[in-house]
Amino acid sequence: MTTVGILGGGQLARMMVLAGAPLGLRFVVFDPAADACAGPLAPLQVGAFDDMDALARFAVGVDVVTFDFENVPAASARWLAERRPVFPNPDALAVAQDRLSEKALFQSLDIPLPPFADIRSRDELAAKAAEFGMPCILKTRRLGYDGKGQFRIRDEADIDAAWQALGAQVEKTGLILEGFVAFDRELSVVAVRGRDGEFRAWPLTGNWHVEGVLSASLAPAAVAPAQQDAAIGYARRVAERLDYVGVFALELFCRGEELLANEMAPRVHNSGHWTGDGAETSQFENHLRAVLGLPLGATHALGHACMLNWIGRMPDAAAVLAEPAGHWHDYGKQPREGRKVGHANLRADDAQALAAALERVGVALDRQAQVDPVVHALRR
Amino acid sequence: MTTVGILGGGQLARMMVLAGAPLGLRFVVFDPAADACAGPLAPLQVGAFDDMDALARFAVGVDVVTFDFENVPAASARWLAERRPVFPNPDALAVAQDRLSEKALFQSLDIPLPPFADIRSRDELAAKAAEFGMPCILKTRRLGYDGKGQFRIRDEADIDAAWQALGAQVEKTGLILEGFVAFDRELSVVAVRGRDGEFRAWPLTGNWHVEGVLSASLAPAAVAPAQQDAAIGYARRVAERLDYVGVFALELFCRGEELLANEMAPRVHNSGHWTGDGAETSQFENHLRAVLGLPLGATHALGHACMLNWIGRMPDAAAVLAEPAGHWHDYGKQPREGRKVGHANLRADDAQALAAALERVGVALDRQAQVDPVVHALRR
Ligand SMILES: Nc1ncnc2c1ncn2[C@@H]1O[C@H](COP(=O)(O)OP(=O)(O)OP(=O)(O)O)[C@@H](O)[C@H]1O
Ligand SMILES: Nc1ncnc2c1ncn2[C@@H]1O[C@H](COP(=O)(O)OP(=O)(O)OP(=O)(O)O)[C@@H](O)[C@H]1O
Repeated sequence: MTTVGILGGGQLARMMVLAGAPLGLRFVVFDPAADACAGPLAPLQVGAFDDMDALARFAVGVDVVTFDFENVPAASARWLAERRPVFPNPDALAVAQDRLSEKALFQSLDIPLPPFADIRSRDELAAKAAEFGMPCILKTRRLGYDGKGQFRIRDEADIDAAWQALGAQVEKTGLILEGFVAFDRELSVVAVRGRDGEFRAWPLTGNWHVEGVLSASLAPAAVAPAQQDAAIGYARRVAERLDYVGVFALELFCRGEELLANEMAPRVHNSGHWTGDGAETSQFENHLRAVLGLPLGATHALGHACMLNWIGRMPDAAAVLAEPAGHWHDYGKQPREGRKVGHANLRADDAQALAAALERVGVALDRQAQVDPVVHALRR
Repeated sequence: MTTVGILGGGQLARMMVLAGAPLGLRFVVFDPAADACAGPLAPLQVGAFDDMDALARFAVGVDVVTFDFENVPAASARWLAERRPVFPNPDALAVAQDRLSEKALFQSLDIPLPPFADIRSRDELAAKAAEFGMPCILKTRRLGYDGKGQFRIRDEADIDAAWQALGAQVEKTGLILEGFVAFDRELSVVAVRGRDGEFRAWPLTGNWHVEGVLSASLAPAAVAPAQQDAAIGYARRVAERLDYVGVFALELFCRGEELLANEMAPRVHNSGHWTGDGAETSQFENHLRAVLGLPLGATHALGHACMLNWIGRMPDAAAVLAEPAGHWHDYGKQPREGRKVGHANLRADDAQALAAALERVGVALDRQAQVDPVVHALRR
């Protein structure tokens, strides 16, 4: 019996546990919060990610370690990797944790991306903003998520406000300035690489964000084959360079024919949640297969799928469950503003049936604004 | 947060827990065995099914009760039903527990079935065996499973041996004699009925048994539409008469054009395991939706699926996981002869691809005998 240790016990861990139980796996999840939502499904060890005594106890109980949370200190991951196999490897994790090093990596791999610069002072910020042109975006290098730790600079007058908002972080997290991309749409590649180097990607996913947080995904995204190939090629290059093992997401901006890399997430990703009901093998199962050195499962889509994120509180389930292929995912969390508490996956054999289902759900839940862009993309 | 109590903590409970967690459900499982295999995924209360004190503690912690094990004493189910909603209802459970009463029910609903008789003595056995003709089968009325508690009477000379084997049970479990059906094949209807009376059935499943234990299932079974309609009509009649809520299976013998009812299982059923990977909604999820009064999910198949049961010990997973749509289900049990320890589901968009996958798996695992009849059915 193999026991997988997961650092972080949120919904990603929860869904990994659900996907891994049929593989005969046991789990231990490690999280600072006693109410981490994977807790009801697996033994939960409560501890801080930099508490080496707690990590030592964790390590003895597991055969292999992986992540639900990407911001585990790289030092903790390295320390664990001396004791147990850790996937993805701590160096890959460290690169993906830092927007500057991941962008430098993309650059070194000839993956197109918006201009970026390390920012150490207000003057550097002003100079680089002038160079890139405005709008541009100041972000923390580390520890940002769901659009947090970002400041959009519309014009010169915003420079001071941006520095005021984030300048204090320069020592702790570092800062990066990025050129603003007036994208037509956002895409992600969700991909997996096995211990033996086998690489597979799910069809490209189209994503819609609201206030920096993912709101809806649609897969397969309607993209030209050449664009799909390019995007998946970028993901493969990244994975190979990092000797990455497991699932990861590469987020891309799409502007006309152009694809520009935004960032990578070194873990199963919200934009891959549709795979739980809309693909032959889910990202959660394939992540575990990769980590364990098992053969990877097929990543093709079963028709068309849309994921709708539930933020703050769960809506009533009935409208989704009444759909011919409506699947519900409640993470069992307490409601809280801005919190990802669950999602729905809707699936259909053809795009028009999926659009119709989304419209019905949008009306029933009074969430037309959430479904409209997806319906629009499907009807195009 | 709704908590579902499950009487019995075996693989059926385990798979219900896995299917129910995304619905935001919590579970408590109740089982006499401290190592019941649902235990790692849900709080397990260890107790006997007739221990009313233990059941009372169980009842206070749950909102609704259902079953993984069909032979919970009807009296315990009734006692619980006075305290909590219990689905299926205890009367339905009681009928399905007793081969005699379920066959009387089938008869009263004009569902064809082999001849049967309640047997109270050796003389009655001899008389009825002569009347039905031999071979025929003596079975315990209650508590049989996986072909246990059965004696096949080939000719008159077997009557004494049959009575010797099972006669002592006449008081405890009762006995029933059934005419032997020289069937061409075995089919089952897996169906679900909601609290509001909505009824849905998955496509018919073809089943192969080895020594009384299910070995393989194939769905959709290749049956004429009229036969499919008849079979599903029988299941619907049974469900409506019993005011059944939840998933159940109706096992049928198929002899030429003729369908003869064998028995019903008042729970999710081994012959419905393929739905976990091969249908839009699994039997496990739809059972919970029914029990909770939620809308039922679609029951259509996604292509063709075959379930292979693993008995005794798990084979190596790699051959199945290497298939394009190979899904693994390890119940996390200790190996033991004759024990159901797991299954695999193989899925494909067309029948020939499924046959080819089965052949590869059969060879890789040296289990050609298990896959051959399924391959044969697919190639026909
Ligand atoms: N350079 C940019 N140009 C245009 N829009 C941007 C840019 N950077 C970020 N955004 C917008 O903000 C969203 C969130 O940004 P980003 O992915 O960098 O943050 P995050 O906090 O890591 O988000 P997540 O947790 O979703 O990965 C992006 O999906 C995009 O909509
Ligand atoms: N009357 C019969 N005629 C021919 N074969 C029979 C008959 N009754 C049982 N069998 C064979 O034995 C198998 C198991 O019998 P039955 O379904 O009655 O037992 P069980 O112990 O309840 O099995 P399970 O647990 O699989 O439901 C049947 O699937 C069939 O192959």
